[in-house]
Amino acid sequence: MHRLIEQIFIKHFDNNWLRQANDQAMFASANGRMVISTDAHVITPLFFPGGDIGSLAVHGTLNDVAMAGAKPLYLSAAFILEAGLPIADLERIVISMAAAAKLAGTPIITGDTKVVERGKGDGVYITTTGIGVVPDGVNIAADLAKPGDAVIISGSIGDHGIAVMASRENLQFGTSIVSDSAALHELVAVMLAAAPGQIHCLRDPTRGGVAAVLNELAQQSAIGIQLIETAIPIKPEVSAACELLGLDPLYVANEGKLLCICQAAAVENLLKAMRAHPLGRDAMQIGTVQADPYHLVQMQTGFGGRRIVDVPVGELLPRIC
Amino acid sequence: MHRLIEQIFIKHFDNNWLRQANDQAMFASANGRMVISTDAHVITPLFFPGGDIGSLAVHGTLNDVAMAGAKPLYLSAAFILEAGLPIADLERIVISMAAAAKLAGTPIITGDTKVVERGKGDGVYITTTGIGVVPDGVNIAADLAKPGDAVIISGSIGDHGIAVMASRENLQFGTSIVSDSAALHELVAVMLAAAPGQIHCLRDPTRGGVAAVLNELAQQSAIGIQLIETAIPIKPEVSAACELLGLDPLYVANEGKLLCICQAAAVENLLKAMRAHPLGRDAMQIGTVQADPYHLVQMQTGFGGRRIVDVPVGELLPRIC
Repeated sequence: MHRLIEQIFIKHFDNNWLRQANDQAMFASANGRMVISTDAHVITPLFFPGGDIGSLAVHGTLNDVAMAGAKPLYLSAAFILEAGLPIADLERIVISMAAAAKLAGTPIITGDTKVVERGKGDGVYITTTGIGVVPDGVNIAADLAKPGDAVIISGSIGDHGIAVMASRENLQFGTSIVSDSAALHELVAVMLAAAPGQIHCLRDPTRGGVAAVLNELAQQSAIGIQLIETAIPIKPEVSAACELLGLDPLYVANEGKLLCICQAAAVENLLKAMRAHPLGRDAMQIGTVQADPYHLVQMQTGFGGRRIVDVPVGELLPRIC
Repeated sequence: MHRLIEQIFIKHFDNNWLRQANDQAMFASANGRMVISTDAHVITPLFFPGGDIGSLAVHGTLNDVAMAGAKPLYLSAAFILEAGLPIADLERIVISMAAAAKLAGTPIITGDTKVVERGKGDGVYITTTGIGVVPDGVNIAADLAKPGDAVIISGSIGDHGIAVMASRENLQFGTSIVSDSAALHELVAVMLAAAPGQIHCLRDPTRGGVAAVLNELAQQSAIGIQLIETAIPIKPEVSAACELLGLDPLYVANEGKLLCICQAAAVENLLKAMRAHPLGRDAMQIGTVQADPYHLVQMQTGFGGRRIVDVPVGELLPRIC
């Protein structure tokens, strides 16, 4: 059984590092600054429209690496399998994970597997860790937003959260909503080339959505943010689903979108470059950064009012990633 | 609740990287070759004589990094918490983890936390990833053992497995047996200095014990191994417990021991250096490497006979690490 599982990993993740079968993998160090990021993935259900826990575990961690402006190089993966998980399901997940890693150009070079008893897990949990290198001259961090900066989003919000919720609850929305799960590092590379030295913050709005991330950035940079509701891209079917479910899309998770805070002078070039990339086709400026001693995120609503976009209280939807 | 958990991590793991509160941590790249290793820790019980899942999660991954001859630099940690885990237990684990990381000189620079429902986890699972740098001139891998080499163990075997089993089953062995869980990278550094270029393989005999590791090395290096039973260090109380439980100590897990395959000419210097280190005090040569087309691990028993030490069938004790 253990050997069977090992073989599935080696077969699909196949690369020189794994074939060496050491308890660790060796790689040539890059020059300069490197980044590391790790994420445990516990999403339920394991398979959802637009992805599964395998592809998500690759995208989620790659995106955290990419949000430092880094080029991801390698991944590691640790699996916690619940006894009774059908081998066919595991293999389907591993195949999807291998495909996502290959497409991203980031091999899974080391890993681990543990099996726990039934009722001590939920099919499979996957923790991935990503290593990347930050190009010279790139300085992106959560505390670098400045008054006067612009806030950009790379595309429509809420797709992942609503897709997972719909599949979890067996909801039928007429049109099928699909997760946006995708690796964003190539979009980031395009953005860095289009606006060198002008991007201050990058963050992917996953758990807690756009609202959580913008509040964190406002706190860490000690600034305020003004959003314009009508500028925020959202698909009609996602908007309708949110209305039906009583959800605010600003709090719904995304897995293939990024928020960018940049110099106002960079917006035109950036949006042009982003919209030329498949993952940035619907990029929009959605707000601006302002001096604000209270570090609030506020939104000018479609009706002309203004409301505070507060920090999410608790988790809207547990196990969304 | 989420904030409470975050605060526990930040308070105890406190370092400049975590304080930046980005979704990834940046570090200066080392020159040359780096290694990465990852391990999911699912041990039960969470607390056992000589350690807990927190210290184990640090030691287990550091040791996998060290077994490449590397100096560990940084750790990441991802927690999967089961709802209902007492916060006091989590804090106790985090404190122990922080102490282990501090003692080892390897800060936990990034991390993640997910919470799953009751019955979908078992208190806490911790996946750690370690990054290290391999000194110039060090070439250690599982396929480098050669006929004529010596096999060394750094100390007594079976302590971790028996300590955990005893605590799990509430067994009373008269004398208390304590896990050997420890970080081995400083011992490795001492060994590399004592026998430069002469160490071919290093492996920590965790799951599956000495038997599993030596069989893997025999396969990967395409050699045979001859062990001498009477040379293998084992504490009397561990030996007695194994007899009582019907266990072969060669298959029992260790968390603070290493197996070393080295040139025969290096043995004297190596043992001297190892025995001068607290974690190598009981180091012994326990066997030799031989040409063997069948890649067998054999043992000359205390009674003068010879037996094959086979690959373990299945896991002797699930969730031991």
